[in-house]
Amino acid sequence: MTVTATSVAAFYEGLQDDLCATFETLDATATFGIQRWDRTEGGGGTTRVLEGDGPLEKAAINVSTVWGPVPAKLSDRIASQADEFFATGISMIFHPRNPHAPTMHANLRYFELDTGEAWFGGGMDLTPYYLYEEDATAFHSTIRDVCARHRIADHAVWKRQCDEYFFLPHRGEGRGIGGIFYDHLTEDLDAVDAFQHDLGRTIGDAYVPILQRRIAAPFTEQQERWHLQRRGRYAEFNLAIDRGTRFGLETGARTESVLASLPPRVRWDADITPKPLTPEAKLVDVLREPREWI
Amino acid sequence: MTVTATSVAAFYEGLQDDLCATFETLDATATFGIQRWDRTEGGGGTTRVLEGDGPLEKAAINVSTVWGPVPAKLSDRIASQADEFFATGISMIFHPRNPHAPTMHANLRYFELDTGEAWFGGGMDLTPYYLYEEDATAFHSTIRDVCARHRIADHAVWKRQCDEYFFLPHRGEGRGIGGIFYDHLTEDLDAVDAFQHDLGRTIGDAYVPILQRRIAAPFTEQQERWHLQRRGRYAEFNLAIDRGTRFGLETGARTESVLASLPPRVRWDADITPKPLTPEAKLVDVLREPREWI
Repeated sequence: MTVTATSVAAFYEGLQDDLCATFETLDATATFGIQRWDRTEGGGGTTRVLEGDGPLEKAAINVSTVWGPVPAKLSDRIASQADEFFATGISMIFHPRNPHAPTMHANLRYFELDTGEAWFGGGMDLTPYYLYEEDATAFHSTIRDVCARHRIADHAVWKRQCDEYFFLPHRGEGRGIGGIFYDHLTEDLDAVDAFQHDLGRTIGDAYVPILQRRIAAPFTEQQERWHLQRRGRYAEFNLAIDRGTRFGLETGARTESVLASLPPRVRWDADITPKPLTPEAKLVDVLREPREWI
Repeated sequence: MTVTATSVAAFYEGLQDDLCATFETLDATATFGIQRWDRTEGGGGTTRVLEGDGPLEKAAINVSTVWGPVPAKLSDRIASQADEFFATGISMIFHPRNPHAPTMHANLRYFELDTGEAWFGGGMDLTPYYLYEEDATAFHSTIRDVCARHRIADHAVWKRQCDEYFFLPHRGEGRGIGGIFYDHLTEDLDAVDAFQHDLGRTIGDAYVPILQRRIAAPFTEQQERWHLQRRGRYAEFNLAIDRGTRFGLETGARTESVLASLPPRVRWDADITPKPLTPEAKLVDVLREPREWI
């Protein structure tokens, strides 16, 4: 086996640099800041946030690499006898300003215990505010093509897991139109590592063309209001539902990094149910009933 | 004993009417809507939301009265052998538009099981965005005076419980500057009922004078930005921490009512730590270190 904790962490760090450079070319108004932080019990991370007046209202690409004694909250979750853990991950979010441009989230992570157990997890998913089927199909096709290049990848199952995970039970809606989600891949780690390299390098290909098509589209005040209202649902998922966020807050990860995924501006208005047959209703329909996009 | 499920529910309904009328006089631009809803398993409620262009950007005064078989999530929490429950409550939130005017939240509730167990809970608390000590002292004094009229009320303990409950561990901050919080009062229910009547009638006295002092104050864009950022912390508490919200969402209460407490407009910006000695820093200081205000 050639996968090591160090090699995975180094890949995530390099990917962070590459993606910051890629997305900075989209936005002439701002660059990604750099904040490094240390974790008392071992390790730390680099938080890179872009906030500007350009097409990306807020973006964050964060890497953390932490280790030490297994925290109590973690040992409940992993049901292992391990004493020490190592975890590294990259997680990113892009919140465009334009309501026609979707939010994209991706995450790759690797976990190791001193018992010898180790696993990968990750995924990427798209959250439009107005539905462009062309974008949804392109996004899912790019991911499907990456999966097709790796025998350890099961696109159909991972696509379904994504729809199941990013779901708001109290709204009866998905957070977005999905992508893939996989977790606890313990077998054939070299092959999974190779898949993650491939997926990581594809993030820009999957998302940048969509942004380029949408970021300059004209929009109305009413559309912007809908955008901010739908971002409220995004915040509801991340704060009330997402296991990763809750786990981060409960185990004392750096709050500013864990919550960097929250949208920059949000509205909560009473009952935003759209009128039937409007573009807004068309979006809600696909959030209520996940589709095959390819 | 004269307290009955019906008498408590009727008091909450009357209080809802009275408070809607009181707060409508503050706001010439909007009135409270009325939405009645039914719960399949038994009971229902009335959601009253005001959204306008006036001093109250959003306010909600909701009553729910529900009953039926004890839901699984509930029976874990109450550790009782009961088969059937009855619960009635009034809960309210006021989000003024002006950053100098604080948000106020209050809740009164009553619970009964077919085992004969019954209890009251409730409280009210204030969340300023700029600290006016005069307001904090007046709010706490009004509540202290209500408590002083009732031998079953323990103001010192309930004040501390409020500071402890409305706390964001991941921020190391209280949600606001407190008030009172009490729960599971199972003894001397007639006396608690009388206290709740008194507290309910005092809500306007505790909050309206503060609103009147602040709602017309001039404010800058920078102060409004701070207001919306701090409202982000409010949303974090309600979505990620508050047991009532989580319980409501998990047990299938009406989502629009449970989440009516969320602020209308919110911002999340990276690291909003204020510069030392500014009015913003003065607020954060008291959120980090609860004070005696009287």
